[in-house]
Amino acid sequence: MNDLDGLRMKLRDFAAARDWDQFHSPKNLAMALSAEAGELVEVFQWLTEDESRHLDAKAKSAAADEIADVLLYLVRLADKLGIDPVAEAKRKLAENEQRYPADKARGSAKKSTEL
Amino acid sequence: MNDLDGLRMKLRDFAAARDWDQFHSPKNLAMALSAEAGELVEVFQWLTEDESRHLDAKAKSAAADEIADVLLYLVRLADKLGIDPVAEAKRKLAENEQRYPADKARGSAKKSTEL
Amino acid sequence: MNDLDGLRMKLRDFAAARDWDQFHSPKNLAMALSAEAGELVEVFQWLTEDESRHLDAKAKSAAADEIADVLLYLVRLADKLGIDPVAEAKRKLAENEQRYPADKARGSAKKSTEL
Amino acid sequence: MNDLDGLRMKLRDFAAARDWDQFHSPKNLAMALSAEAGELVEVFQWLTEDESRHLDAKAKSAAADEIADVLLYLVRLADKLGIDPVAEAKRKLAENEQRYPADKARGSAKKSTEL
Repeated sequence: MNDLDGLRMKLRDFAAARDWDQFHSPKNLAMALSAEAGELVEVFQWLTEDESRHLDAKAKSAAADEIADVLLYLVRLADKLGIDPVAEAKRKLAENEQRYPADKARGSAKKSTEL
Repeated sequence: MNDLDGLRMKLRDFAAARDWDQFHSPKNLAMALSAEAGELVEVFQWLTEDESRHLDAKAKSAAADEIADVLLYLVRLADKLGIDPVAEAKRKLAENEQRYPADKARGSAKKSTEL
Repeated sequence: MNDLDGLRMKLRDFAAARDWDQFHSPKNLAMALSAEAGELVEVFQWLTEDESRHLDAKAKSAAADEIADVLLYLVRLADKLGIDPVAEAKRKLAENEQRYPADKARGSAKKSTEL
Repeated sequence: MNDLDGLRMKLRDFAAARDWDQFHSPKNLAMALSAEAGELVEVFQWLTEDESRHLDAKAKSAAADEIADVLLYLVRLADKLGIDPVAEAKRKLAENEQRYPADKARGSAKKSTEL
């Protein structure tokens, strides 16, 4: 069993033990994921890019907490939708390799449609 | 090698081939993750909760795309910060089991501080 | 002087008195706005749509706080970019009136491109 | 009638003409605002802070569009909740003046609780 499958099963048990499936509609889980993404952004909002590359212990711990929260809601949402997030990420990455050919995209932050 | 490690290595190669590490500061990656979370929310914003539980093929495909994008940026951000997202998610879930005791949290959407 | 102009001038004074212009790049202000939008979503994430139409005093107060925070960052960001937010909103609304003709859009949550 | 009141009334008419009040629960409007905030972040995500201070015409136009969208949903949400966004923003700013005394907060991006 892979990593995210382990989390998926634990999250099912966690919700079932608390009778929380009633709250875990995909709509609500997408909102919760987004709120956690907002907390992740908050960690970085007043830092320079360079400071963000060298977080102090407190900021790194805060970032780890928010990354964890986003991942937990992502796994839970994908489970509720019957989506395999790792398979989808691999597919999307393969698509991006086509959309952003290395020779055209090198050193550019342009969108694929502008390359 | 587990699932997310595989993605992590592929993403390193993807960025290196395009000379994109210069753009991938943790600050910028947190922003990109958040923008993808916004696109995920957009899939669900006008649906009822019940509709979100029974997506049509088009909406499910859109949700899969956005879940993939969030996961890709999450793995990339965690890699740049030296954070293991699955280990952090397991830790956080264990903490949540303490913060939300099943007998107190059953059927309630209250925050842990309000239980 | 209109409402948002009043806020704009107060925010300039507020930042100047604290020497915060150094932090208030448009990039950072967009992040801060987004983080506040995440807090706004958090107020509603476990509520049903109907519950969201009848907030209790505590939730309404939380929503008011987050709406205020979003507006403050929006006014500040627009000021830094030299954008008039009300003029842009009027322009956008006029465009939406064209993109979503009342007879075609009536009762539909479809995107303009799908009408 | 002030600026946002004008928008508020126009948005009421816009929604009524399209029978969209059914979709405009505060929960859904908060989601829509958040999705637009994500699009705003996307404008800035690969720019340096300095680049964000000197947008080219295309990026400035994109930022203006997203600022408009956020403001439209903010006004609509506040209307549905019976909240006056400008009054709340003034109140919040006055609170922030107390929480962040100029002499303590000068040049610091710390939270009020850390000053």
